[in-house]
Amino acid sequence: MSWGVIGTWRMALEGIMEAEKLLKDGKSSLDAIEVAVKMVEDCPEYRSVGYGGLPNRDCEIELDAAFMDGDTFSIGAVGSIKDFKNPISIARKLMDERYNIFLVGQGAERYAHTMGFQRTNMLTDYSKEEWKKKKSEIKLDKLKAYDGHDTVGIVGLDRNGKMAVATSTSGLFMKRSGRIGDSPLSGSGFYADSEIGAASATGVGEDIMKGCISYEIVRLMEEGLHPQEAAEKAVNKLNQKLISKRGEAKDISVVCMNNKGEWGVATNINKFSFVVATEAEEPTVYIASFSDGKTTYVKATQEWIDTHTE
Amino acid sequence: MSWGVIGTWRMALEGIMEAEKLLKDGKSSLDAIEVAVKMVEDCPEYRSVGYGGLPNRDCEIELDAAFMDGDTFSIGAVGSIKDFKNPISIARKLMDERYNIFLVGQGAERYAHTMGFQRTNMLTDYSKEEWKKKKSEIKLDKLKAYDGHDTVGIVGLDRNGKMAVATSTSGLFMKRSGRIGDSPLSGSGFYADSEIGAASATGVGEDIMKGCISYEIVRLMEEGLHPQEAAEKAVNKLNQKLISKRGEAKDISVVCMNNKGEWGVATNINKFSFVVATEAEEPTVYIASFSDGKTTYVKATQEWIDTHTE
Repeated sequence: MSWGVIGTWRMALEGIMEAEKLLKDGKSSLDAIEVAVKMVEDCPEYRSVGYGGLPNRDCEIELDAAFMDGDTFSIGAVGSIKDFKNPISIARKLMDERYNIFLVGQGAERYAHTMGFQRTNMLTDYSKEEWKKKKSEIKLDKLKAYDGHDTVGIVGLDRNGKMAVATSTSGLFMKRSGRIGDSPLSGSGFYADSEIGAASATGVGEDIMKGCISYEIVRLMEEGLHPQEAAEKAVNKLNQKLISKRGEAKDISVVCMNNKGEWGVATNINKFSFVVATEAEEPTVYIASFSDGKTTYVKATQEWIDTHTE
Repeated sequence: MSWGVIGTWRMALEGIMEAEKLLKDGKSSLDAIEVAVKMVEDCPEYRSVGYGGLPNRDCEIELDAAFMDGDTFSIGAVGSIKDFKNPISIARKLMDERYNIFLVGQGAERYAHTMGFQRTNMLTDYSKEEWKKKKSEIKLDKLKAYDGHDTVGIVGLDRNGKMAVATSTSGLFMKRSGRIGDSPLSGSGFYADSEIGAASATGVGEDIMKGCISYEIVRLMEEGLHPQEAAEKAVNKLNQKLISKRGEAKDISVVCMNNKGEWGVATNINKFSFVVATEAEEPTVYIASFSDGKTTYVKATQEWIDTHTE
């Protein structure tokens, strides 16, 4: 059977190269995407996920992550967790539980500690400097969540037909302590059903959760739409709905794949990079953009890949 | 224009009687359902919401709540918040924010404190005794989340056509600290779109979030289904999907209403009570049950209402 993997943002590249080897080799999609997400979490150059992520307004790195198994609908998720290196592995561990599958804050930290995960200081010097700069730029009472809202979301299909999805993020730069975005919310940041396909979203969580967009994309694939059509239809509908109800729609970008390994992508912004690897295609970075209600994409040049981390 | 309100469980009765007065009088559905949910939160006899809720395994009352405005898609939500009397009012306050609309744990508590909400000890003597009993019954290493998973979820439609939905719960009795259920998750525990309708769910959050059931019900109403058909179709589909993928489906019950004031209800359990009031119908308690893939309901007797709190 065919296999495939697709992830949000150029930062997924190195991880997807590792995932490709595992999937080619017949390994489980759960293992492949966990490895891929961990590589993004561990890299301090990637400023919106894991180590090196940008802090909240108290200069703390608070992380959200989730995992879903498309065979069993098992979900594990953590929100607003501090001082652990790989939230994605804690989320995966939570998939074993029947109850208490989504844990936040200190409860999540206690669970992780009990399960043997190591506490680590996740703040880098770079992130600390960025925080200081931002803080001095703006008055405290005008502090607003800002930028750096790039979730890594990775969808995988293995040779046994199992689909899975994983997300990880440090959330909005300068967010309030305790803020949760769409990434750990089932149906919003992620959704997977091996009988159909899987999807993941990135952008401003506050808007993404208003449309349950990952669930909607999988549902449209169930209706028979190609992943590309499903992704565009769902993003366009939510984008228009938000504009009509609120006057604006913030950043929304999605990736998805069906259980044949066909994939799709859609965005409402100008530059959304993503990475794909399938039986037919070596790991490739694309840059998608949105105009006239259509998402189009081109291959990124090696120069662009070498000079961009987002 | 017509108005209406529908809420989960018999415990919504007193609140819905108050909401009825406000809605009849032309008041906003936001105000009406906030008043209704607060009455449930404040009543110590109701063991699964607010004051008098059942504690987590550390004997702490941790509360989840959410609010959604169907005109603007504004959402506010809190998860795993301790020591505040009316989480629903904190959730409503968060609807004013553009970012940071879903706060959990200590971050949520700090926000609430800053906004002037009073800290209160939410543990009643009754709840403490129930916790001690349960704790002595079962060995600590076998402690499992258990029972008492009854969210109050209230959907309202006002004379101006605005639909809104609000949820509040203390979650699973004996849950892990930091556990989040479906109640504060957009699309799972609640969803509202004034152009269509609104829905809310109650039951085992771990299963409800696997199907984004409130979003799905609103979507089916958008396709033209009557709320009753939409509710049953969505619950039956998720119920069957869970059984086929996992061998079992835990408790799932839903209420919904469209923007004409027509309502629907569905469940996969034996006894799900709910309360309705519309222009055509005084506040009425019904008991729904599920057999052969169908939800049916009868009016509750006064005796049943007087002797049941759930």
